[in-house]
Amino acid sequence: MKRFLDLADFTRDQIQDLLALAQSLQDKPQPRALAGKILGLVFFNPSLRTLASFQAGMARLGGSSFVITPGQGTWALETRQNAIMNGAAAEHIREGIPVLASYCDALGVRAFADGKSLQADMNESLFRMIDALCDKPLINMESAMNHPCQALADWRTMDELKVPARAKFVLSWVYHPRALPLAVPSATLKMAAMRGMDVTVLRPEGFALPRETMDEARRAAAQAGGSVTETAERASALAGADVLYAKEWGTTTYYGDFEADSRLRADLSDWCVRERWFADAAPNAKLMHCLPVRRNVAVADEVLDGPRSVVKREAFNRLAVQMAVLHRMLS
Amino acid sequence: MKRFLDLADFTRDQIQDLLALAQSLQDKPQPRALAGKILGLVFFNPSLRTLASFQAGMARLGGSSFVITPGQGTWALETRQNAIMNGAAAEHIREGIPVLASYCDALGVRAFADGKSLQADMNESLFRMIDALCDKPLINMESAMNHPCQALADWRTMDELKVPARAKFVLSWVYHPRALPLAVPSATLKMAAMRGMDVTVLRPEGFALPRETMDEARRAAAQAGGSVTETAERASALAGADVLYAKEWGTTTYYGDFEADSRLRADLSDWCVRERWFADAAPNAKLMHCLPVRRNVAVADEVLDGPRSVVKREAFNRLAVQMAVLHRMLS
Amino acid sequence: MKRFLDLADFTRDQIQDLLALAQSLQDKPQPRALAGKILGLVFFNPSLRTLASFQAGMARLGGSSFVITPGQGTWALETRQNAIMNGAAAEHIREGIPVLASYCDALGVRAFADGKSLQADMNESLFRMIDALCDKPLINMESAMNHPCQALADWRTMDELKVPARAKFVLSWVYHPRALPLAVPSATLKMAAMRGMDVTVLRPEGFALPRETMDEARRAAAQAGGSVTETAERASALAGADVLYAKEWGTTTYYGDFEADSRLRADLSDWCVRERWFADAAPNAKLMHCLPVRRNVAVADEVLDGPRSVVKREAFNRLAVQMAVLHRMLS
Repeated sequence: MKRFLDLADFTRDQIQDLLALAQSLQDKPQPRALAGKILGLVFFNPSLRTLASFQAGMARLGGSSFVITPGQGTWALETRQNAIMNGAAAEHIREGIPVLASYCDALGVRAFADGKSLQADMNESLFRMIDALCDKPLINMESAMNHPCQALADWRTMDELKVPARAKFVLSWVYHPRALPLAVPSATLKMAAMRGMDVTVLRPEGFALPRETMDEARRAAAQAGGSVTETAERASALAGADVLYAKEWGTTTYYGDFEADSRLRADLSDWCVRERWFADAAPNAKLMHCLPVRRNVAVADEVLDGPRSVVKREAFNRLAVQMAVLHRMLS
Repeated sequence: MKRFLDLADFTRDQIQDLLALAQSLQDKPQPRALAGKILGLVFFNPSLRTLASFQAGMARLGGSSFVITPGQGTWALETRQNAIMNGAAAEHIREGIPVLASYCDALGVRAFADGKSLQADMNESLFRMIDALCDKPLINMESAMNHPCQALADWRTMDELKVPARAKFVLSWVYHPRALPLAVPSATLKMAAMRGMDVTVLRPEGFALPRETMDEARRAAAQAGGSVTETAERASALAGADVLYAKEWGTTTYYGDFEADSRLRADLSDWCVRERWFADAAPNAKLMHCLPVRRNVAVADEVLDGPRSVVKREAFNRLAVQMAVLHRMLS
Repeated sequence: MKRFLDLADFTRDQIQDLLALAQSLQDKPQPRALAGKILGLVFFNPSLRTLASFQAGMARLGGSSFVITPGQGTWALETRQNAIMNGAAAEHIREGIPVLASYCDALGVRAFADGKSLQADMNESLFRMIDALCDKPLINMESAMNHPCQALADWRTMDELKVPARAKFVLSWVYHPRALPLAVPSATLKMAAMRGMDVTVLRPEGFALPRETMDEARRAAAQAGGSVTETAERASALAGADVLYAKEWGTTTYYGDFEADSRLRADLSDWCVRERWFADAAPNAKLMHCLPVRRNVAVADEVLDGPRSVVKREAFNRLAVQMAVLHRMLS
């Protein structure tokens, strides 16, 4: 495996193999499997789980890692093509990425959406550039529109919880003080569709996921025996839900328009998940979230601290599935 | 050992055992003792010695470590219970701590005092929360009112220097431009009392250590055969002193009141340790300080660069004693 | 080897030996050579290549490393002698450096020029202080006037490219929005002179390298069979050039005078290397630069993306030569 950029680049069988490898590495540790291997980690954006779980994962397999945070102790990196670099950035990724790649055996990169042009972000224009510049195995640690490590951990979490493939999976927009990227909702939708689930995307008007994203998910669902629908009606969406996956994201209707986004979300602070949301859900319906989650803003304490919440388990699983990815890439 | 939170949680015999282990690891290195083990290090506050010595200590024992600095490259972490998280913090420690703990074999946390309520800080309310959230071995890398790693290193330093148990140990307040936490003075006082020393706390009016802290130290001293007194009179305090432990801290009389603290310390800039302070001390009296120390503000160059100063030796000993703690916890 | 501070501290034979060791470690990896060894890395200034290549280099040799970035997660460090430390810095290097050195087996330090007094920077007054404070092997990761790791990597790069010893090497000033230190141009000039090349320093008026630096290079050239000249005439300088080494630096005529420097460089934005600069150069003339480079400000895309550019190769070589230095110091 030379690239781990998108769950959709793999067949369901390949994903099952990765999940089986994750289990196997948990059952029978291989503390020297990656001895002498080095993982470079580049964070254009903040992290907690991703940084800690990748460093811990390499160490558990006997390898090591280094961390680069452009602009914090490290030169800020320019990403625009043909830029006249007379601003804050001292170095271009055209030099930075190949140089860092040369020092390690695999590179992980986190680079969030630019948030200005939906088309540019949908095209993954930045990550495609990074991909082209990197001649070592490359891991997407969250790009403009994707987060395959999170999606794989979430898949494993549902398998562990014995959530059936055809269960009802509701991906719900929740409130946040400002617009967040589409990476996790897009990756989550695709993952649930590939897993064959009956997926409902619940979101207020103005926050529909891009048509292209919905269409891709519908095709994946069709192939896997599931379905994808969308609605703004919370009650009907949550009726019979087995999983409520809460996520914050920005307006797509006015993508990149800060003021329009603020106006749209001004009246939506009741989109904070509370126990009453589960009134008509399946009795053991689960609450999922990729973390970090703003308590009592996106999800209430009563849910996060109750038995429905599996958000920590999802985070724990980041370590297991990423170790499988690293093992497949480097051993 | 599952917790290293407070020297007072251990008997004198247990502490002597730890110090013997530190010596043994120095005499006969065990470079594979913690092979495959991972230490997570969470710094809510700045560090230099602690970061470097814990990372080096794990490496010297064959293990590895990762560092999380909330708010710097990592999501800022909320610590208040039941907070409505619409501010800067993206994640709550209720998620952050268990998740990080799941990636490692032991967690070290530095979280200074909030500095607003003396009672809350005395109760270690934040560190107790972290303790309850962490199901892995936990190390206090300085909390609101404690710094057991420093205290253990200081104990070792005095043993190495053959400072007798019943020597006169003066913990003296020294000047700093602003209020610093009570963690080190409290831990130092307790350590010297547990070691059986004759301890004098020298501090200007308004800077007495909390009565509860003094009482705890008096009980420890009684048990170990030493004594604890306090005074604002420098000359009598320093007469015959074998050790002068200099430390900066904030007013306790007006705890959390920035302006009152500033007024109180405005006239105290002569509380900078100079050679003349030792005029009536024991001939070979030592100057101790936990570092970082502001030269010519808290302690003058003439003392720090002279033969009395053992401040670097204290810092060197951080590595040795922390390796003993890690070995006891993880091997 | 206890110090790697200046290429000029070594004979040509010793440098050839280091370069041979670099090649040997590349051909026959020694993944356990530095097992159990720890490298401390202290960055007073930003880095990317240096941080990543030293961490990766230690890991490839079986050792480990820790990183301290004063003022970012770590206490800011005071460097002035006899300072009354009532400002931002909480700790002095007189404590900080010996303490960090005690935790590791070798220390690397990056500390750029202060940029106020040319004489103080020429004297390497800060790095000499650090040198005196460090009782472990010490590596200069870029000081006020030197960058021996970069110079060694550049030497290796020219050897690999079979650039003859007597080739024409042009070190050219190039534009940057503000004054940068003299470390790389000084180290590069010395390196090319020691390698026996015919060196021309091309720079606008006001940007001549210090006479002492030029004289030292002339002596090195004389000994190695090469030559050193300087000029402000671009056409004559570049005629027949085999290597154009582009570098940005500040005025030396008005060293430390921000406004004078700004005035001087205001009209010099055409000192951006373009393909036409090579019109009369040798057909296969190479473009070198230490990175980071501001595209289309210091060097145009057309050159950096063309066949002349070997800037990434120089950066790749940092890993190889630094591994040789570490191996020589610690194995």
